[in-house]
Amino acid sequence: MNTILQQSFSVSFQYPVCFTEDLFSFANTQFVDVLEKGKLVKTYFVIDSGVSEAFPDLISKIKSYATHFKDRFFLCAEPLIVPGGEVCKNDPKVYHQVVEATHEFGIDRHSYIVAIGGGAVLDMVGFAAAISHRGIRLVRVPTTVLSQNDSGVGVKNSINYFGKKNYLGTFTTPVAVLNDFNFLKTLDDRDWRAGIAEALKVALIKDLSFFEWLEKEASALSKREMEPMKAQIIRCAQMHMDHIAGKDPFEFGSSRPLDFGHWAAHKLEHLSQYRVRHGEAVAIGIALDSCYSHLLGWISREDLDRVFGVIRTLGFSLYEPELSGENLIQGLREFQEHLGGKLTIMLLEKLGKGVEVHEMDETLIRSAIQLLEEENRTAKNH
Amino acid sequence: MNTILQQSFSVSFQYPVCFTEDLFSFANTQFVDVLEKGKLVKTYFVIDSGVSEAFPDLISKIKSYATHFKDRFFLCAEPLIVPGGEVCKNDPKVYHQVVEATHEFGIDRHSYIVAIGGGAVLDMVGFAAAISHRGIRLVRVPTTVLSQNDSGVGVKNSINYFGKKNYLGTFTTPVAVLNDFNFLKTLDDRDWRAGIAEALKVALIKDLSFFEWLEKEASALSKREMEPMKAQIIRCAQMHMDHIAGKDPFEFGSSRPLDFGHWAAHKLEHLSQYRVRHGEAVAIGIALDSCYSHLLGWISREDLDRVFGVIRTLGFSLYEPELSGENLIQGLREFQEHLGGKLTIMLLEKLGKGVEVHEMDETLIRSAIQLLEEENRTAKNH
Repeated sequence: MNTILQQSFSVSFQYPVCFTEDLFSFANTQFVDVLEKGKLVKTYFVIDSGVSEAFPDLISKIKSYATHFKDRFFLCAEPLIVPGGEVCKNDPKVYHQVVEATHEFGIDRHSYIVAIGGGAVLDMVGFAAAISHRGIRLVRVPTTVLSQNDSGVGVKNSINYFGKKNYLGTFTTPVAVLNDFNFLKTLDDRDWRAGIAEALKVALIKDLSFFEWLEKEASALSKREMEPMKAQIIRCAQMHMDHIAGKDPFEFGSSRPLDFGHWAAHKLEHLSQYRVRHGEAVAIGIALDSCYSHLLGWISREDLDRVFGVIRTLGFSLYEPELSGENLIQGLREFQEHLGGKLTIMLLEKLGKGVEVHEMDETLIRSAIQLLEEENRTAKNH
Repeated sequence: MNTILQQSFSVSFQYPVCFTEDLFSFANTQFVDVLEKGKLVKTYFVIDSGVSEAFPDLISKIKSYATHFKDRFFLCAEPLIVPGGEVCKNDPKVYHQVVEATHEFGIDRHSYIVAIGGGAVLDMVGFAAAISHRGIRLVRVPTTVLSQNDSGVGVKNSINYFGKKNYLGTFTTPVAVLNDFNFLKTLDDRDWRAGIAEALKVALIKDLSFFEWLEKEASALSKREMEPMKAQIIRCAQMHMDHIAGKDPFEFGSSRPLDFGHWAAHKLEHLSQYRVRHGEAVAIGIALDSCYSHLLGWISREDLDRVFGVIRTLGFSLYEPELSGENLIQGLREFQEHLGGKLTIMLLEKLGKGVEVHEMDETLIRSAIQLLEEENRTAKNH
């Protein structure tokens, strides 16, 4: 009586993640190399206000580059400048401005939106591009450490909604990711440092040798030496890409094993009204879940101190006042909802090896928070 | 100097498309069979007002069914009734209501939204589900011929925006499609007929034997005989699914070869302010592009008359006043933009075989429209 037809297909996704310098100099063909060949393509640039302020000649460089390669692409309108940071994800008017531009300028599925900025701008522009015409091609140009080594190389986009981080979004691959190291030079120290937290995260749960490398280079990184920074970014980006490609790129399951330290980080960012930046919050989240792993008896006090040592040498704080009280625990419940009912949290079995758990003890979380608070106070007194 | 990491992965997508009757009777396990096993899952129902009016006991049947299978799933809130037809896609408040419900009722990525209705409601709910939490599981229960044999079994969702059809949307697979033939019984004659246009479409471009079958059954179909209707739906759905699975499911290229007759149909719907329903517009679009194919010398006048014959026997009109003037031609340009610059239109090389072209002659389109208008007038006078 019943008939069942089974639909089944696979879709292949590919994109290059390039690391370069001076992306829009005439000698650099990375940008035009990722555009569709054999036609003149329409492009629309959306630029993080932080970037356009730090690089006042950026737009004129892009226009000169477009003129130089005028047989390959053109700008269909003046670049759109959008506020950088979480504010562009918090205010739906900003993403809507990008959607409106696609309508106004006839930007279609074979045109390219080029997003230049930090992770928040890339997320927001990516969401607008993903839903307009069911998906306009996106080139991401991440300009911060955090977006170059982590968020910018992945498959997610989003805006915040209902006061919840990343509430609306999709999984959509970019056409290409073009990481230009020159953009890092003008970052303030906080942003320079913040992205390194993601490298520490993957190192701690996946790769002891990378953790040891970070231990060795932490001081040079904190002094803004460029060569270890580049090495860190490329290695971290590769690990992040391998993770995405390896298993469940669009997260149909409930496991998100690269999210070490992130349940607390998301909530802390929100509680501090984004005074604490994502990478800073991740560093604290890593410290917290490392403490928790230690209190469970999984990593030794010596190992925990090594983790604290890297975090401190990089210049991060171990504690923020928003960790106290019940608000953070509430974040754990929200994270559970976001994951789909079944909680999955990454903890440390040992340095370089994460392990998933499906519950966390609230009393133990409070003890871990207390340990961090003491550690932070002690450090300040020295 | 430059480093390029190449990201590459494949994602597998599967979903069953079931054909059944009396979906929410206790003996029917199709619904619970498609839910995740081994846990009690949260569901949220969104129902087309046309369906809830035609089946006043539907909600109580669903609730009884949920009680009967209370170890498998529960309703997290009262079902949401939304307006049926294009109005639900035209007014962004409607999709936003679904998004708000996901927030209010804690509907997460492992919960299920169940959309019961015609193609417009499925599109709109699908869009809300696809972007909330980056994708909530969706079960589609198409209730019209059109949605059961075509739109409901595919991978697209959307809402209309800026006065443009399907401007915002994504490609997202459902968890399952459950086609219940009982819903067809209360359709008015126009909706019963409208969906058959999609079968005529695929038959004409892909399968002469299916066209001949439709010629033979057109009269029975127009008399609302259920057995040929079921056969038509299953065959058409299968062809549609094969097309999606066969090549470019997410339409990264510019080819959409199943869109025979659709460029004019989309514009006609819009010009008539949706007085002309999608299937009715598709029938006219098929007639128009068949005429155009004939005027190009590709199909004979006899074959064109066979196409007209099926369209008429099914009860469709061949012409609507909105076809006159320049508005329709404008629709061709909009379709080109939607496709991404390069126009791709399916025409008939012969009955049962479509062929793609990349330009259409506007003078010839006007001649085809005139031919349709005369044909329609002649038919009325007989």
